[in-house]
Amino acid sequence: MGIVDPDGQILTRYMLLTPGNKTWMEIMDQIHASFIDMLKQSDIAINELKGIGIGCPGTFDSKRETISFAPNLNWKNIPIKSYFTQKFPVPIWFENDTNLSTLGVATFGEGRNSDSIIGIFIGTGIGGGLIIDKKLYTGNTGGAGEIGHMVIIENGPQCQCGNRGCLEAIASTSAIHQKIYRSYLRQYEGSGILNKFKENPNKSDAIKTAFSSGEPAAVAIINEAFYSLGIGTVSLINLVNPELIVFGGGLAESFGDIIIKSVKQTVEQRAMPGTYENVRITCTALGEDAPILGAAALVKMKLENDD
Amino acid sequence: MGIVDPDGQILTRYMLLTPGNKTWMEIMDQIHASFIDMLKQSDIAINELKGIGIGCPGTFDSKRETISFAPNLNWKNIPIKSYFTQKFPVPIWFENDTNLSTLGVATFGEGRNSDSIIGIFIGTGIGGGLIIDKKLYTGNTGGAGEIGHMVIIENGPQCQCGNRGCLEAIASTSAIHQKIYRSYLRQYEGSGILNKFKENPNKSDAIKTAFSSGEPAAVAIINEAFYSLGIGTVSLINLVNPELIVFGGGLAESFGDIIIKSVKQTVEQRAMPGTYENVRITCTALGEDAPILGAAALVKMKLENDD
Repeated sequence: MGIVDPDGQILTRYMLLTPGNKTWMEIMDQIHASFIDMLKQSDIAINELKGIGIGCPGTFDSKRETISFAPNLNWKNIPIKSYFTQKFPVPIWFENDTNLSTLGVATFGEGRNSDSIIGIFIGTGIGGGLIIDKKLYTGNTGGAGEIGHMVIIENGPQCQCGNRGCLEAIASTSAIHQKIYRSYLRQYEGSGILNKFKENPNKSDAIKTAFSSGEPAAVAIINEAFYSLGIGTVSLINLVNPELIVFGGGLAESFGDIIIKSVKQTVEQRAMPGTYENVRITCTALGEDAPILGAAALVKMKLENDD
Repeated sequence: MGIVDPDGQILTRYMLLTPGNKTWMEIMDQIHASFIDMLKQSDIAINELKGIGIGCPGTFDSKRETISFAPNLNWKNIPIKSYFTQKFPVPIWFENDTNLSTLGVATFGEGRNSDSIIGIFIGTGIGGGLIIDKKLYTGNTGGAGEIGHMVIIENGPQCQCGNRGCLEAIASTSAIHQKIYRSYLRQYEGSGILNKFKENPNKSDAIKTAFSSGEPAAVAIINEAFYSLGIGTVSLINLVNPELIVFGGGLAESFGDIIIKSVKQTVEQRAMPGTYENVRITCTALGEDAPILGAAALVKMKLENDD
């Protein structure tokens, strides 16, 4: 979380790892406590804030004001808005986390001059966001932009969302990590290479290290996942014909140009001629600031619309 | 083609089959001649028209004002705007044909009260259109809405566009017809069932007849194609979260509720919980009027924007 001024300067950053094995309300309580702590450390009173923007995992249902479904946490119908509204005396708005990251890129990052942008964020899952005509597009009930749940392989691997062959089930950090882990387990049981991989708490970094080591099975698994990422990008270009596609999230940060080069190659081979040539594809330099800046942009946008 | 009044009443309809084995200019000349003939038959002078809307196959590049790529005709960079602008003394606008059909549904059909609509039109190819915030969304260079070129099966069958595993290569009328034809060729060479199928010039009708006959291989091929159509619809729901998805085109007209029922079943099993429940899925009743009404809506929209 962070405190941001109206020009998009982040004044304070505060990091909190999501505690495991807790109920949603325990997690929210901890987020709330950290928020109060951050204000205290920054010597800022809560009523100095113009508003609060919160990024949610999964789908934030804008009509019912709940998280309708967050597959990776197995949350359904979480009344997050009523929880936080009671706690804070300032205006507060919610949005899906990667929608916010995309909005951050559009407002303060690589997308400042683009009308149509697709954000693709690769972490535990794969999230996304759509900017259409310079506005965040969230769909009829807030569920738009679930790029990770486009089907790439009709009867492919099981996804947490209940579907099969979703991009997330093939090319997310978790999916790649698990595939390499299984391969190492078969090949290197009891050896240092397996333990080193397993014990690295940063999965993106573990994957990047495996790639850099040149271990053939890991390299093949990673290249296959990037190929599928390219295929998903092809479908997005043919469907949305955006000006800009931005990659972010832990895996994109670890691999940078390697991902972009692989995706571009697949796009050049497989996307619609006449359409893909004008699409810019890049990684965002905003890193972990993207969702914070997006939350600030959300507050700014909502306050301006209220004027 | 047709002549439409400002309320969306079609005053005249005129049907012209695209002649095969002709250059694009010969085809345009024939369309132009038919247009003049239609005006004469309707006793309407060309300067009584407020404008002309033309639906193009493939991608109409709105910046360069050409058809950049029409895979099923193998056309690239066709200067259709300069061809027609010279011929007509009234304002003229162009758009992809199924973008127009979707706009027709949005303006005069099932989508009149919906903000976000996806049109899926199944004919020789599979075309589509996106309505976002009540406006036709055509993307950065006019290429958006190519629903038929979303990849459903990563390394699936070759598509005319150069890609593999596109929805169009799996579930278009041509793809299904060819698969049944090959199956019949293996099973029924020299028999009446093969000849009857082959000789029906209306491919959608031939497919529907094969389905109704209960011939097991044909039924399986058709059900598989409809399943893939459902998978494509799942990806679209997860990505766009529209209010309405409308099917049209020859195959949807022939099968009607059979397609809708199959697609809905796949959507219920595989789309994101919390998102798909609010999506209405139906066939359009506009039939072949959809693109004509869409062309009229395009002219209306452009004239209103000019005011």
